[in-house]
Amino acid sequence: VARAIVFLSDFGLDDEFVGTCHGVIGRRAPDARVIDLSHGVPAGDVLRGAILLRDCIAYVPEDAVLLGVVDPGVGGARLPIAARTTGGRLLVGPDNGLLSLAWRALGGVERAVVIDSTEVVLRPTSRTFHGRDVFAPAAAHLAGGAELSSLGATTPVDALTEVEVPRGDIEPGGTSASVLSVDRFGNVALALTGDEFSRAGLDASAVLEVRTPDRVARAIPGSTFGDVEPGTLVVLIDSAGWVAIGRNGGSAADLLGARPGMVIRLRTTSNPAEPKTQPRGSAGT
Amino acid sequence: VARAIVFLSDFGLDDEFVGTCHGVIGRRAPDARVIDLSHGVPAGDVLRGAILLRDCIAYVPEDAVLLGVVDPGVGGARLPIAARTTGGRLLVGPDNGLLSLAWRALGGVERAVVIDSTEVVLRPTSRTFHGRDVFAPAAAHLAGGAELSSLGATTPVDALTEVEVPRGDIEPGGTSASVLSVDRFGNVALALTGDEFSRAGLDASAVLEVRTPDRVARAIPGSTFGDVEPGTLVVLIDSAGWVAIGRNGGSAADLLGARPGMVIRLRTTSNPAEPKTQPRGSAGT
Amino acid sequence: VARAIVFLSDFGLDDEFVGTCHGVIGRRAPDARVIDLSHGVPAGDVLRGAILLRDCIAYVPEDAVLLGVVDPGVGGARLPIAARTTGGRLLVGPDNGLLSLAWRALGGVERAVVIDSTEVVLRPTSRTFHGRDVFAPAAAHLAGGAELSSLGATTPVDALTEVEVPRGDIEPGGTSASVLSVDRFGNVALALTGDEFSRAGLDASAVLEVRTPDRVARAIPGSTFGDVEPGTLVVLIDSAGWVAIGRNGGSAADLLGARPGMVIRLRTTSNPAEPKTQPRGSAGT
Repeated sequence: VARAIVFLSDFGLDDEFVGTCHGVIGRRAPDARVIDLSHGVPAGDVLRGAILLRDCIAYVPEDAVLLGVVDPGVGGARLPIAARTTGGRLLVGPDNGLLSLAWRALGGVERAVVIDSTEVVLRPTSRTFHGRDVFAPAAAHLAGGAELSSLGATTPVDALTEVEVPRGDIEPGGTSASVLSVDRFGNVALALTGDEFSRAGLDASAVLEVRTPDRVARAIPGSTFGDVEPGTLVVLIDSAGWVAIGRNGGSAADLLGARPGMVIRLRTTSNPAEPKTQPRGSAGT
Repeated sequence: VARAIVFLSDFGLDDEFVGTCHGVIGRRAPDARVIDLSHGVPAGDVLRGAILLRDCIAYVPEDAVLLGVVDPGVGGARLPIAARTTGGRLLVGPDNGLLSLAWRALGGVERAVVIDSTEVVLRPTSRTFHGRDVFAPAAAHLAGGAELSSLGATTPVDALTEVEVPRGDIEPGGTSASVLSVDRFGNVALALTGDEFSRAGLDASAVLEVRTPDRVARAIPGSTFGDVEPGTLVVLIDSAGWVAIGRNGGSAADLLGARPGMVIRLRTTSNPAEPKTQPRGSAGT
Repeated sequence: VARAIVFLSDFGLDDEFVGTCHGVIGRRAPDARVIDLSHGVPAGDVLRGAILLRDCIAYVPEDAVLLGVVDPGVGGARLPIAARTTGGRLLVGPDNGLLSLAWRALGGVERAVVIDSTEVVLRPTSRTFHGRDVFAPAAAHLAGGAELSSLGATTPVDALTEVEVPRGDIEPGGTSASVLSVDRFGNVALALTGDEFSRAGLDASAVLEVRTPDRVARAIPGSTFGDVEPGTLVVLIDSAGWVAIGRNGGSAADLLGARPGMVIRLRTTSNPAEPKTQPRGSAGT
């Protein structure tokens, strides 16, 4: 029986790109289940895609092939690769770091190949849609049981491209971190882990100051939205393990004007009863 | 063979929430077909989700598990439940009324349990993403054939939360109703049934007046868009049985400025040839 | 084993229309794989849907049923049809031309029927959602192995509706073409083939002038985005075979203000070093 394929891209769902890749997989591996992890990665945002591919691991079938296509350099010098981890997990995508956080979490790459087999790659091969012509067929072959080596020639593991997650800038009582993502509900995930949050002493404060480049607001540490009053900001560890700013019954992102990449500063407040910061009421307006 | 799972949420498709739930289902019930009914429910709109879960019943596999996740109170006091109807249908979701219109249409709940089995719920359990950690695994277990009782302890059926669909305010010759939804084509569905429409005598009028808080327009009763001239509003019974305002070749919502929750008044006109209302031409501007 | 169903519509994914059709297919053909080619066709854009259904053929399972629902005349005079091509391929949709480019590419229609069997069409039948009540059940029956004739009475092949792709207006050194589509990345596909591009001599020019109704810019012929400097426009043959205008690391559509249906003129430039056109720098502002 075929392995599942977990498919992530920045193709969006307005165009036919995702559907065409599904079609190719359906031709090559008709029994393979395709799980669309997300196709809403911001266009070309390799880091965001890499984080999502890593964070999904505990939540997808254990033998699923991970197929990632966030590929701003499509048709250029970056190599199309397939990799097998030390634990036997299979990954397919461009060698631009997109797969690197996942394979690191999976114990590292044992073997990698450049996808160039004429049995696998579709002909004619476009130079702008390797999702369809290279990556989807490669994932389908692997899902159907093909050996990694049947996809192409081995490439040195040491030369594979990796990406790094930006770290928070931690000091006692405060930290800066960049916004990783803003979700549909307006929750603002920061590139900051719960460990870092504790190390900065932020979990000991009853009220936190949240400062963006042009706004300031107060937030209450909690563990879910309903822990604070309606309309109030809450700082919690989100379901992926990131420190995130939410809002009970509303959008934290709208209140803060937060966007991916923006740097946000969290700070303890010395006097929660009379904060030196802007009062909550007016911050909400 | 596994039952299908019909999955509805307010997660949207820009983030990885839906895909992660699919992954969890793929781990627990690899043979279960997942039918994504809709993930475009407005954030936190429990009533809208409840209506969609009810209205889908005739159009999904008869033994499908209904999985609904519109859960603004996630991680708070509301219980995560699974229910079996008198006819043997299975439903999974938060106890906030989301499932209630469906189970009522299915004859009522025979037994309900709180989902808390450590065999089912993922550990660690986030307090903000029960779709992934509680509801998707529970639905997968049921789809795979597990007994309802294996998910957790029984909870009293009488105490389950229910929601009600708002009713139109009907009087002879006119009615007010709130907007249930606006679809991609700009069709405006009202919380008004065909029966109510007839009882108000609106089907006897050749021309109807449509009045929003700040606009007025004319509409022709019909049964499909092409029954009226291009650009004209038509009042019809939509495919879910609601009275809806459409427009031939255009968006009724744009013409009317209609949004979910807005109250719209329909009225018969005494003289269709010389309506007292604003002429159609200028209503379009 | 059931055939796959390739499903294209203009339903979008915000509403429940696509999910409801999936539900109906799940009832009638529980084993049929459904491949969602795209549901993002602009509302009512039959030509765009027809092109996508044709262009997918090489990339979907060879025996898949093609199900297309872009149906602005739903419930009116146009017929709901199912067709079998000379090669045995099956297509389902409204007789408004949506299927015509696909069947022409597949060798033409051998037999067509009007879908009206009471064994197939759902009762009651809405007049506004034939995707659910007519087309999805018909596709499911065919995917499950039913004969075309079981869907309804034969209709003359000669009377079927066809659409035509607009052609570029070609002359030596220049051509006008309308915009077929703008994708998520801002790539602008023109109704112009690579052959037409060559016949106009445009491939011989080192720099092209791109002229919209209100802007002018320079573009470099290439074969992928990275062939030009970051921010620069590139004219290439896209993965579907259309001449398209892209931009390295950005949106060509934003730069040009391009929208579907807009006419764009491409022209060779006599002196690439000192173009008579607006310099690139200011074109980007």
